[in-house]
Amino acid sequence: MAGTDSSQRNTNADLLSTDAPAIILVAPQLGENIGMAARAMLNCGLTDLRLVKPRDGWPNLAAVAASADAETVIENTRVYQTTRDAIANLELVFATTARPRDMTKRVVTPEQATNELHEFIADGGKAGVLFGRESKGLINDDVVLADAVLSVPLNPSFSSLNLAQAVYTIGYEWVRHRDQTPPSEISYPKDTRPGNKLELTHLFEHLEAELEDSGFLRIEEKRPTMARNLRNMLGRAGLTEQEIRTLRGVITSLVGKRKKR
Amino acid sequence: MAGTDSSQRNTNADLLSTDAPAIILVAPQLGENIGMAARAMLNCGLTDLRLVKPRDGWPNLAAVAASADAETVIENTRVYQTTRDAIANLELVFATTARPRDMTKRVVTPEQATNELHEFIADGGKAGVLFGRESKGLINDDVVLADAVLSVPLNPSFSSLNLAQAVYTIGYEWVRHRDQTPPSEISYPKDTRPGNKLELTHLFEHLEAELEDSGFLRIEEKRPTMARNLRNMLGRAGLTEQEIRTLRGVITSLVGKRKKR
Repeated sequence: MAGTDSSQRNTNADLLSTDAPAIILVAPQLGENIGMAARAMLNCGLTDLRLVKPRDGWPNLAAVAASADAETVIENTRVYQTTRDAIANLELVFATTARPRDMTKRVVTPEQATNELHEFIADGGKAGVLFGRESKGLINDDVVLADAVLSVPLNPSFSSLNLAQAVYTIGYEWVRHRDQTPPSEISYPKDTRPGNKLELTHLFEHLEAELEDSGFLRIEEKRPTMARNLRNMLGRAGLTEQEIRTLRGVITSLVGKRKKR
Repeated sequence: MAGTDSSQRNTNADLLSTDAPAIILVAPQLGENIGMAARAMLNCGLTDLRLVKPRDGWPNLAAVAASADAETVIENTRVYQTTRDAIANLELVFATTARPRDMTKRVVTPEQATNELHEFIADGGKAGVLFGRESKGLINDDVVLADAVLSVPLNPSFSSLNLAQAVYTIGYEWVRHRDQTPPSEISYPKDTRPGNKLELTHLFEHLEAELEDSGFLRIEEKRPTMARNLRNMLGRAGLTEQEIRTLRGVITSLVGKRKKR
């Protein structure tokens, strides 16, 4: 989806001003995936990216290319030699895994993890989410370092997420949690307002008068039903004042054509 | 996230058995993105992929490589010459855009769109979601074909999503809507059960007796508080029966070391 516009209707303008969880990628293999994860993070207002022993080193040109200019994230990425070091200053850590592990551990959904992260960070806590390498996920010794396991409930017969998608899942839930965008609303072009009932009534009367004249409403007993159907049909469209004027022009134009014949 | 396991705790086992929305990519440029979108779709139980004029033709080796074996989707992908043809048999269509368009149109969040898709498809309807090319998104002539605009509320200063991430957003909401996974639960290894209160009491008594003996609880007036703190600490861990036995072994071992000295 192309295009970035700061006047967008969403209410996340202050997204970057607040603390957010760190994203820790343990032993990531492909620079492309690191870059796509960085882009997904910035899409969601997350900026604290930490890498543990990235296979191809750091900085990584493939990561920069795939990040689609998510410079805020790429330039501040920190690299660590161990997972322990990467999470040293965090107080709450989730470990993302698809596979069930043979250990006694709390398992949470992305939504639940995000609820907890929001609450914890709002109280001044420092938190993060661990992601394993592309091929194998997190090793058990890393899972043990976390407070709980985060598992994304997906298609059980095809649940292996691309690394950047896994990171985006957390970012998306993070934005979703604080988003106040109305679920559904009508967007109008500038200087447009919904048509009022008088304008709509004039449209209906115009149409019905012309249909009377043209013979379409000639069967007397069907006329009220037909008129109601037409009014319902056009009413459902939620016409703007401009659209009502357009439709009246359309009627006039069609009538003109017929009358000329 | 590596690993796929059909015994996973999530409840989406029947994901592929029900109808789901079609994903229509209009003029996609990179095979990699088509492949990653296909993988994200199958992750979420979506299988109906339609392409309108893919830039590099179809089939596309780069798409296959990036799909991570999402063959069900790749092999059934259909290619069309126009958006109109691709959505011909659909009755409800959303157009995904990041940019606000200068038109009168309903705009919905991914959650709202998914709610409507679920309801519509449950009633036997056919529905789909349109995505534009990577560089520019959907053209207005394609947006007009849709019933409503779907816009993902993200970081307004960096809202341009990777194509596969945009597709995954809809897939993820689709799974999320029907998912019944408990938000938080404890996973146990096989043949493990939580410790009961008697086992826990025996652990506490064992520990306190040894600490009495070792002199740790020697200050009489601090003893009740210290014992309560230790019981609270260990109680919070939610120990399993096996873990309680392990801890008792740990105590015995530590005591043995001291007594040998």
